[in-house]
Parts: sequence; structure tokens; C-alpha cells
Amino acid sequence: MTDSYPIDQQNKLRQLAEKADYDRRTVHEILDAGIMVHAAFMQDGQPIVVPMIYGRDGETLFLHGARKARVIKLLKETDSVCMNVTLLDGIVLARSTFNSSMNYRSVTVFGKPELIEGNEQKLQAMKIISENTMPGRWDELRESHEREIKMTGVIAVKIESASAKISSAVPDDDEEDYEIPIWAGVLPLTTRLGTLQSDDRVLAGIEPSAAVQAMQNRKL
Amino acid sequence: MTDSYPIDQQNKLRQLAEKADYDRRTVHEILDAGIMVHAAFMQDGQPIVVPMIYGRDGETLFLHGARKARVIKLLKETDSVCMNVTLLDGIVLARSTFNSSMNYRSVTVFGKPELIEGNEQKLQAMKIISENTMPGRWDELRESHEREIKMTGVIAVKIESASAKISSAVPDDDEEDYEIPIWAGVLPLTTRLGTLQSDDRVLAGIEPSAAVQAMQNRKL
Repeated sequence: MTDSYPIDQQNKLRQLAEKADYDRRTVHEILDAGIMVHAAFMQDGQPIVVPMIYGRDGETLFLHGARKARVIKLLKETDSVCMNVTLLDGIVLARSTFNSSMNYRSVTVFGKPELIEGNEQKLQAMKIISENTMPGRWDELRESHEREIKMTGVIAVKIESASAKISSAVPDDDEEDYEIPIWAGVLPLTTRLGTLQSDDRVLAGIEPSAAVQAMQNRKL
Repeated sequence: MTDSYPIDQQNKLRQLAEKADYDRRTVHEILDAGIMVHAAFMQDGQPIVVPMIYGRDGETLFLHGARKARVIKLLKETDSVCMNVTLLDGIVLARSTFNSSMNYRSVTVFGKPELIEGNEQKLQAMKIISENTMPGRWDELRESHEREIKMTGVIAVKIESASAKISSAVPDDDEEDYEIPIWAGVLPLTTRLGTLQSDDRVLAGIEPSAAVQAMQNRKL
């Protein structure tokens, strides 16, 4: 396998092409930093977009939902899903609106969704999704009941093509605009996990595990 | 105009329908809290999804990009765009994977994109987008140059249908699972603007305006 995704009509970035990155490692890093993907597919002849949680194993992304949910039915019948994960990192406050912009890490992925059958394969995919969202939690929770596995629809999407786009910039103003007496710079935007809040029914003496405590304050 | 969006096949929420909200005010509040929308439309016969910044004026959303950008060309030719704004608010760590979930505020909007022509109308839409991202900044920046307006493609999408979905929950576990000696609760997830970082070429003695300073530490 090559280090980069081949560039074709589907994944080629045309705007701000200098920010494009087809390196597999870059794509994987952004996918692993995110929690939510926006998946686009067809419904009644029209494109729709649905936010979903996900997990990655190598070149495969996993999605899930209720087995009878429309999103699962639509995904298993589609030939191509397009998915985007974007993490916003800041607002670039330039000296003109035209040169103002955002900082971000963004990945777009294309692939064919496949419904996963078989309890073992489903469980493995469900674990991958769970570990992306709440690392370490899977092994400390009770085992999934048979009916829970049955009620869950799991979709695998092998990455057929992908691209990343990263912007991490300071204002790049027109030369004459630097003489304008106005402040300019960057306002960072951060998505971060916070501090654990127990529910009312935690048994006396029970504390969060080390794995759960380690989830706190993580920056996406 | 009614207070709610009519429910039809396009915007009807089927999963977790008890979390659905078709109230215009709820939809508007979430749209106004967000900065990034994911827009889905067709490209070469396949649905794609693109993250964009946006602004709202009444029942219209505005998007923009380089006038010659593919996204603008595709949007102006499409009959229907689907857009989603989702703000993640936390991870619900239940006593089983099956009952674990996310907290979020999410809006899905459908409408027909229209390319805006005319400098005045374009400028007004550009201001609305700018104000959603960096409130107050528009009026303190120099006026847009004619060529900047020409180079910008602006799309208006009148909201034809919309729905919101909000989850703000603590774990809702199976009754027997409450006896399992494991911690459970919520881990908040917050997206927040930070502290202004000046670029290297701010003129001596120039400070951020009150409007720009007020952008700091805002929670989305």
C-alpha cells in the first residue's frame, strides 16, 4: 500500500490546493482526533447529510445506528457515501473580510458502505466505534446482550479515496492593508472534553476508572 | 408564518423522535450558535458533503466561496441542498455500551440554493456570514474592493423544511444495570473560542476593538 491516496476526480482538491494533503497518515490522524463524521448519501433521490459517531480500523471506517433506522437502511443500499470530519481550530481575523478565514483540520472520505452481518464481526466494529469515542470503556462495561447486538446496525466503509485539508495560518493580508490601524491575528477555537459528572445512581464508593478519568480535558 | 416548520417526508425525524423539535426558534437558536455547516449536494452523480461557514437572516441561510470554486458552481445548479449543523455537548457514559450516547444540538435544513447577483445583495449576504463568525468585525474593517466582491460567489438558501434534535441527558440504563459497580455519568464536550493572538505586524499602539475582545471565550 502506498503512503498516499491516489488523486482522482473524486478526491482532488481544487480550491486552496496548496493546503491539500493526500498522505494516509495525515488523513488517519484527523479521523482519529474526531468524534463525529458527517455522512452524505441519497434519500428519495436527494442528497442528505447525517452526523454520526464512528471509529477507524486501518482503511475502514465503521458507523452504527439502530438496525431498523432509516440511516442504516439507506447506507446499506448505497454505492457511495461521502464523509467529512472537520475540526475547527480558529478564526483568522485579517485586515479585510476578504482575507479573513478559518483554521481547521478537515478530511473527506469516499467509499462503499457494507452492512456487517454476524455477531462477532458486529461486536468488533462496535468496539472500534466505542473506543474512538470513549477509549478503554468497552472492556470495563458488561458484555453486550444478544438482543442489543441484534438491534444494532453496523456499517463498514472501506476508504476508496480520501483527502485532507489543513489550515493553520496567521492573517495573510494585502501589503497595503498592513498600514491600516486595525488589530489583526488569530482567535483560537478549541473543542475539549471537560470534567466527569456522576449521575445520581452511582453506587457508594464507586469511582471512575483510570481509563475514564484519562478522557477528561482531552482536546479534539 | 407559523411557529413551526411543517413536518413532511423530508424533515420528519424517525429515530429518537421524542428528541425532535420543529420549532422555528429552536432551529434558529442552534443555527445562530454554530459557525460551520455541512452541506450535501450532488457532484458527478454522487452525493458529497462540504464544510462551510454560513450566516442566517430570517429564514435564509447564506454560504460563500470563491466565485469560480466548484462548490459554488455545483450549488447554483442544484435543486436541493441538505445542510446540518451539529454542536456536540457531551458523551453520556452509561453502564452498557448500548445505552451510552452523545449529547448534542443538531439542526438539518433543506432548501434550494440560489446564486446571488448584484454587488449590493452580495455585500449584504457577505456581512451576514461575517457577522455570524466574527460579530462586529465587518464595520471596523475597510470596505470590500470591487474585485473582491466579484471574486466571491454567494449562495442563498431559503429554508424549505427543517428539524432540530437535541439530546441533553444523563445515562438511562436498564434497571438491573444500576446494580453493576461501575461509574456512570456525563463527560461534557465544549467548543469555545479562546484568547486573541496578535499577528507580528499589528501597528504599535493598536489594540483589539471592544467587539473583537468580546468574541473571546464564547462557547458555541
